[in-house]
Amino acid sequence: MVDITHKSNTLRTATAQAIVKVGTEDTITAIRNNTVPKGDVFAMSKAAGLLGVKKTPELLPDCHPLPIEFTGIDYEVEGLEIKVLVTVKTIYKTGVEVEAMHGASVVALNMYDMLKPIDKGIEIHQIKLLEKKGGKSSFQDKFR
Amino acid sequence: MVDITHKSNTLRTATAQAIVKVGTEDTITAIRNNTVPKGDVFAMSKAAGLLGVKKTPELLPDCHPLPIEFTGIDYEVEGLEIKVLVTVKTIYKTGVEVEAMHGASVVALNMYDMLKPIDKGIEIHQIKLLEKKGGKSSFQDKFR
Amino acid sequence: MVDITHKSNTLRTATAQAIVKVGTEDTITAIRNNTVPKGDVFAMSKAAGLLGVKKTPELLPDCHPLPIEFTGIDYEVEGLEIKVLVTVKTIYKTGVEVEAMHGASVVALNMYDMLKPIDKGIEIHQIKLLEKKGGKSSFQDKFR
Amino acid sequence: MVDITHKSNTLRTATAQAIVKVGTEDTITAIRNNTVPKGDVFAMSKAAGLLGVKKTPELLPDCHPLPIEFTGIDYEVEGLEIKVLVTVKTIYKTGVEVEAMHGASVVALNMYDMLKPIDKGIEIHQIKLLEKKGGKSSFQDKFR
Amino acid sequence: MVDITHKSNTLRTATAQAIVKVGTEDTITAIRNNTVPKGDVFAMSKAAGLLGVKKTPELLPDCHPLPIEFTGIDYEVEGLEIKVLVTVKTIYKTGVEVEAMHGASVVALNMYDMLKPIDKGIEIHQIKLLEKKGGKSSFQDKFR
Amino acid sequence: MVDITHKSNTLRTATAQAIVKVGTEDTITAIRNNTVPKGDVFAMSKAAGLLGVKKTPELLPDCHPLPIEFTGIDYEVEGLEIKVLVTVKTIYKTGVEVEAMHGASVVALNMYDMLKPIDKGIEIHQIKLLEKKGGKSSFQDKFR
Repeated sequence: MVDITHKSNTLRTATAQAIVKVGTEDTITAIRNNTVPKGDVFAMSKAAGLLGVKKTPELLPDCHPLPIEFTGIDYEVEGLEIKVLVTVKTIYKTGVEVEAMHGASVVALNMYDMLKPIDKGIEIHQIKLLEKKGGKSSFQDKFR
Repeated sequence: MVDITHKSNTLRTATAQAIVKVGTEDTITAIRNNTVPKGDVFAMSKAAGLLGVKKTPELLPDCHPLPIEFTGIDYEVEGLEIKVLVTVKTIYKTGVEVEAMHGASVVALNMYDMLKPIDKGIEIHQIKLLEKKGGKSSFQDKFR
Repeated sequence: MVDITHKSNTLRTATAQAIVKVGTEDTITAIRNNTVPKGDVFAMSKAAGLLGVKKTPELLPDCHPLPIEFTGIDYEVEGLEIKVLVTVKTIYKTGVEVEAMHGASVVALNMYDMLKPIDKGIEIHQIKLLEKKGGKSSFQDKFR
Repeated sequence: MVDITHKSNTLRTATAQAIVKVGTEDTITAIRNNTVPKGDVFAMSKAAGLLGVKKTPELLPDCHPLPIEFTGIDYEVEGLEIKVLVTVKTIYKTGVEVEAMHGASVVALNMYDMLKPIDKGIEIHQIKLLEKKGGKSSFQDKFR
Repeated sequence: MVDITHKSNTLRTATAQAIVKVGTEDTITAIRNNTVPKGDVFAMSKAAGLLGVKKTPELLPDCHPLPIEFTGIDYEVEGLEIKVLVTVKTIYKTGVEVEAMHGASVVALNMYDMLKPIDKGIEIHQIKLLEKKGGKSSFQDKFR
Repeated sequence: MVDITHKSNTLRTATAQAIVKVGTEDTITAIRNNTVPKGDVFAMSKAAGLLGVKKTPELLPDCHPLPIEFTGIDYEVEGLEIKVLVTVKTIYKTGVEVEAMHGASVVALNMYDMLKPIDKGIEIHQIKLLEKKGGKSSFQDKFR
């Protein structure tokens, strides 16, 4: 684990995404009408994601435990694709990018888990960091 | 959570993948030569994945806790892509596909976490189920 | 921890309740209209409760880990009182009553946590077992 | 999850209670004389509660992880009622009331779990916040 | 993780020990008289150990999750040495020796943690398996 | 749990050890040549230990949760003995000695777990604190 004892606390923000691609338009309709048998897919997956973000240092050996001071989870539907957006903030010595990515992954997996009884064609794509602020890299970006 | 009290135990197997795409050939070399500063990427990510598979029901509300009787984690490198393959087995009333997918996701995220200090271009793609045996669906496949 | 190696697997069911009493009718309206700022209270508390049931043996030292084969979470609103009903099933050597009670407690606490920004008068009452089937006690009931 | 990045650290204290009502005076005697078969009820439930307080953000999706800097657990026996009192302190941006309430709930559930083999009449009542200091609400109280 | 899908359930028992050596006779007296400031050392460490045994597969990547059907924790005091004895039983396809050893380790560490404010000379020795029954090895012992 | 609200943050470091004694020279060779069937013993046990250090407050009731800002894990082989060295750092109000000791214990147990299929003579010895800096005790050492 990297030694961060000498680093300073700064506000760090990271936004990650995951794409959940469903098999048919009916699945989107079932989510919107809240008729999926396992329950409200967006609300329950948000709950899973909020808990998942906090569990990141329990899963990744080198990840520092840190004070999660905000997590926001949003969904954008476009055709058969649902974009999961997870934003995490902390004021600490190291960033929250893997926390945001893990959160996006957990939200996507939970959607998969809730939807698989009604749609065998669910796929998860492009778990990636969209934006990162605070810390060394964004400082360089700013002054270059 | 789906009621599975009436179901029978059968051998269930699931294999999932995740693709970790690195930014440069140097990263592949560093992994192979074990010169990544955070340590041995394949072995440590395997450890994280083995634990991650077992943690799946703690993350997904509707996922039944079940006896994980085997987890295998393999890597296939092709150019800049590392394919993570996670196979899980149980003898139980419900399948292990989300367990395998969550394991693949954790392995991929841990590789990302270990490699980001040396490669800013890591991406995670295509977390998906490759194969599933046992249970209702594969039975249908067999006799159709 | 009680030694259960000599006991037989039977279907066990337990239903527990918790009462969440809110301070004003407006809170009930906000839950029903899904206008609580933290999100959908019933769906997110259900997610928390499903995970909470599975976490029971991590919290209670003497509680045996067991295969949770069903958890159902329902709400009944009557005036200012919301009755949380949690039913858990297993086929195992010991019952699921503390699991159901812990689930009811977590659902109630999560409702409290989500509602406290809009209602300072939330109270939690009567976490108790409503019904228990399977195992020694219900067997006696049956034949007496 | 509420964004607390802009808030300041202050000393926060919360005290919560749970009432465990036993069925007979014999149960109180067994606890006092340490003859309950599962072991020392007060000491073991205190251990469970100390761990339970720390686990709160793993159970409640919107609850911020925070540095628990003190937890105190006390029991007051009056007739057939045992009042469980849990006090939690932190120096952080948000309060510890759900942590104290969850702690009280876990202590009460553990007492139930340890006592049910000798007393079928155990009930848990009134999990509620008794006092809260620090943060916005208590500041207002002070100067109004 | 070793594939155990082909193995049969049998009763497995394992007993492990840890030796906690205290610095002075006063520490033994404080434990016996229950005057250690942090609380009842034997009862609280037993609670920690019961939970610790169940947490073993969360800590050791290759360890199979299994139904812990009994855990017993005992203490034997001889001079300045406290022998912690942890016995675990399961009916499953693989043994419980690392569970018993991990339990003994957690009990010993918790005693250390509770006693260090009053005794700077605490040491932990000889975490080891004392006995193992059930499974392949003990079968061989029996018939050789 | 001790009240630390009045204490000041200082840099705290602790190094603990555990000794893993193997039964034969072949085991050392298998570890070095990475031919142990369960995988790379040093790398995977390091991963388990990094996670184990972070899990300490989940196992020990009185242990304060704190920001682990560094964990280093090293191995020294001498004959049949492997010395596991775990160093932990934090900047907080209380020390990290039980975290380091628990980390050493988890690394040692994981080595035991990975090696037991090839060596029945593994023993774990002397889990102890080697050095502690920061906090009251080391301050006294400095000025005496």
